[in-house]
Amino acid sequence: MEDEEQLGSLRTQRWGRFELNLQGPSSGNPFTEITLTAKFRLRHLVIEVDGFYDGEGRYIIRFMPDTVGEWSYETTSNVQELSGIRGTFYCVDPEAGNRGPVGVDKTFHFAYADGTPFYPFGTTCYVWNHQGEELEEQTLRSLAESSAFNKIRMCVFPKHYDYNLTEPAFYPYEGSLENGWDLNSFNPGYWRHLERRLSNLQALGIEADLILFHPYDRWGFSKMSREEDSLYLRYAIARLSSFRNLWWSLANEYDLMKSKSMQDWDRYFRLLQEHDPYQHLRSIHNWHHPGIHYRSNLHWYDHGKPWVTHASIQHPDLHFVSEWREQFQKPVVIDECRYEGNLNHGWGNITAERMHDCFWEGVLQGGYVTHGETLLQEDPILWWSHGGMLHGDSPERIRFLRGIVEEGPQLDKVSINFEWDTSAGGVDGEYYLVYFGSSRPAFRILPLPEDITFTIERIDTWEMTITALPGLYTAGSRIDLPGKPYQALRITAVHN
Amino acid sequence: MEDEEQLGSLRTQRWGRFELNLQGPSSGNPFTEITLTAKFRLRHLVIEVDGFYDGEGRYIIRFMPDTVGEWSYETTSNVQELSGIRGTFYCVDPEAGNRGPVGVDKTFHFAYADGTPFYPFGTTCYVWNHQGEELEEQTLRSLAESSAFNKIRMCVFPKHYDYNLTEPAFYPYEGSLENGWDLNSFNPGYWRHLERRLSNLQALGIEADLILFHPYDRWGFSKMSREEDSLYLRYAIARLSSFRNLWWSLANEYDLMKSKSMQDWDRYFRLLQEHDPYQHLRSIHNWHHPGIHYRSNLHWYDHGKPWVTHASIQHPDLHFVSEWREQFQKPVVIDECRYEGNLNHGWGNITAERMHDCFWEGVLQGGYVTHGETLLQEDPILWWSHGGMLHGDSPERIRFLRGIVEEGPQLDKVSINFEWDTSAGGVDGEYYLVYFGSSRPAFRILPLPEDITFTIERIDTWEMTITALPGLYTAGSRIDLPGKPYQALRITAVHN
Repeated sequence: MEDEEQLGSLRTQRWGRFELNLQGPSSGNPFTEITLTAKFRLRHLVIEVDGFYDGEGRYIIRFMPDTVGEWSYETTSNVQELSGIRGTFYCVDPEAGNRGPVGVDKTFHFAYADGTPFYPFGTTCYVWNHQGEELEEQTLRSLAESSAFNKIRMCVFPKHYDYNLTEPAFYPYEGSLENGWDLNSFNPGYWRHLERRLSNLQALGIEADLILFHPYDRWGFSKMSREEDSLYLRYAIARLSSFRNLWWSLANEYDLMKSKSMQDWDRYFRLLQEHDPYQHLRSIHNWHHPGIHYRSNLHWYDHGKPWVTHASIQHPDLHFVSEWREQFQKPVVIDECRYEGNLNHGWGNITAERMHDCFWEGVLQGGYVTHGETLLQEDPILWWSHGGMLHGDSPERIRFLRGIVEEGPQLDKVSINFEWDTSAGGVDGEYYLVYFGSSRPAFRILPLPEDITFTIERIDTWEMTITALPGLYTAGSRIDLPGKPYQALRITAVHN
Repeated sequence: MEDEEQLGSLRTQRWGRFELNLQGPSSGNPFTEITLTAKFRLRHLVIEVDGFYDGEGRYIIRFMPDTVGEWSYETTSNVQELSGIRGTFYCVDPEAGNRGPVGVDKTFHFAYADGTPFYPFGTTCYVWNHQGEELEEQTLRSLAESSAFNKIRMCVFPKHYDYNLTEPAFYPYEGSLENGWDLNSFNPGYWRHLERRLSNLQALGIEADLILFHPYDRWGFSKMSREEDSLYLRYAIARLSSFRNLWWSLANEYDLMKSKSMQDWDRYFRLLQEHDPYQHLRSIHNWHHPGIHYRSNLHWYDHGKPWVTHASIQHPDLHFVSEWREQFQKPVVIDECRYEGNLNHGWGNITAERMHDCFWEGVLQGGYVTHGETLLQEDPILWWSHGGMLHGDSPERIRFLRGIVEEGPQLDKVSINFEWDTSAGGVDGEYYLVYFGSSRPAFRILPLPEDITFTIERIDTWEMTITALPGLYTAGSRIDLPGKPYQALRITAVHN
């Protein structure tokens, strides 16, 4: 993997990666037989991290320091030659663009470790990293050119499903579909490739919402034993947790994985909690939703459990976002609300208008939303799973919204009732963003607070225009609207 | 009132009207002091109906016979000159177009008394009958020209609300806003006018869903005492129940009428049950809906009560129709799901696309839907309340759907799952109507029953085109679709 983050052996930037490469035994099964950890110390602060075996006698320990200063370390192993290795390095200020990992901020939001708010505008390319060099590079170019997205949902394991029937370029384990897998021997080549892709995403400012388990499987990776699952999770944590742009998505559509119980998910969440030194964001993503069983979120994994950092929800109706915020008291990310596309499947055939509408509605209720694209092409490549090129009309609208959101404050529920046909968020008395969705009033009387004056801009969210309205506004102001869908107002207090 | 239905004094058509006009005292208060009923007999069948006072010493008894043959009658009164009056008339076969009153059919549907299915395609003109001659005649012309609607929601009492601030042409009571109302003295001129409008609607084949109470009131009619309410209901029943095109809508947005309790509504339903000899359809219409309190139908008046013939629901999300059918085991009519318009109010600013989409979704789930229009014009006339002219783009689409529905069987839940992004109704193995709504699949594999072959027509519900697809279809047939919203399929079994 590229190691541009380690600035020589003695200097590592804050939230960069210090990596210790060791040589050790290659006989037996080093993945299961050899233990290796290191304690990193800065004054009284001690952080213990797991090392991992990288094949051919190579052992690696990775560490992401979060504090500037001189760190020392010492290894421990059940093999003498890997134990008692000591050294120091200096953690320095981060380079521009490195704000650290993302965590929860102010109950319902996210921020980088340096305090900068992070507003997730996600997309979904489940197995883009399994498609081979050419297509993967194209995906990265598309992400860079689009500038719409700063989070991507992607899987560790390959995917078997409609439109996903070819074999992947790499497998995480040694073995083959024909001859079986050695679920106690990882394939380091696979993991190095995954790490390269995480680094590529990091360079683009994109968080990797890494899906650890999923049900779309012909290889058996969805039906491993508890011991094999645990070995896999610990290997993934040891290898990957030093990536500052990493989020753990424990599973996609976990409720389709009939071989795992709610207790298994609890156990794996706790394992992530116990072994990830950096406490990356943790979530789990459902399948059941109201299109199938209306009002059935009762059976969802309880996002209120303490090890879940945010609710990662599949649901086509963004109307419920504010309810889920209240229910879980955590950030709500609608990681699937159907995809812009024309697929035979219901989940993949909404219009670009509806996709962009979902973003506005979800975001203005104080949640976050994830995009996907399933537009059938001449070739069998669909962005939703393979990456490649973006063909839809929603990404530029999502980028437009992202720009507006990043210019403003974190959006919370406001005490003003802008009428039930709108979604509205903001900061009381300071800032309101009001979205009319598919409603098309010709005008609206705004119940703004008295004694405060505001400027108002009218936003056409589909046409992506922002028009400053002349003058100042206050309680009871009447605003004329164009009487067509997808209009919004940005209302900003004037301070003298 | 016009009495074209009474074919001379001795012949009345089935479901027509026999009317007995009597002269009696005009002193005191005949509305409260004089009782008058008549028993109509055909062999062993006896039907008792109430008469009413029409002012200036005129007393009227109306009767709608439902059986062909010779009927006799005899009056009873607490006034000697009105009592013991006897006679006979002959009930003959109905004229063409007279199918009798509408009732519930096969649990979830409606039919005329002669057995012909009735599919309600309603519209809303709350107080069109309070607007004066010129506008009312224009409303009737619009209804005739549109041909979209066969049911209209309209109020007995005048309406006070935004866009409804002028005084009506007539009041149901003697008195005035300034000097108060005599709530024990009805204004016969008002009622004769209402009856003329009911007759006009009947001539157009339109059922009058007559709203007896509503909360939009500056005159006090929404806050009468129980005794006054009862007197009003009994007067309305005596005058109006012989209209075969009459439905009783006990109240619009009853839950905004804070002066009446659930027990009051029970009582008034039972009063209608007891005094209406013909058992016209009875319903009550809510205000609260999920836009305000999501999932809150728990607090609705219980449409399961035995005196409620069908659920008359206000709700913007047609997704729930099949659930309400199951819950109430009665016909479900979504009498308000927002209106085609551009009003400042949320309930009145959806697009024509959405209005027509509501009809398709609701109807294909086995329910029925009601239209409204609130498109702001140069003049202050809005169809939703005043009638006048239809300006929107949804009525012709509703007429198109009505034509398709009237050609087919009553739509019920089918055992085939056409995928959750569709609404589908029909008759298993015989007929399926499948609607894709705002989804836009490029194709669909149809899980049709095996061993049956079908013809398929592709319907563009917005463009109003029907395209017969070549060939025959069966289980697993793939149908190409144009990849745009508002498509439907009509699938009809081929019988050799």
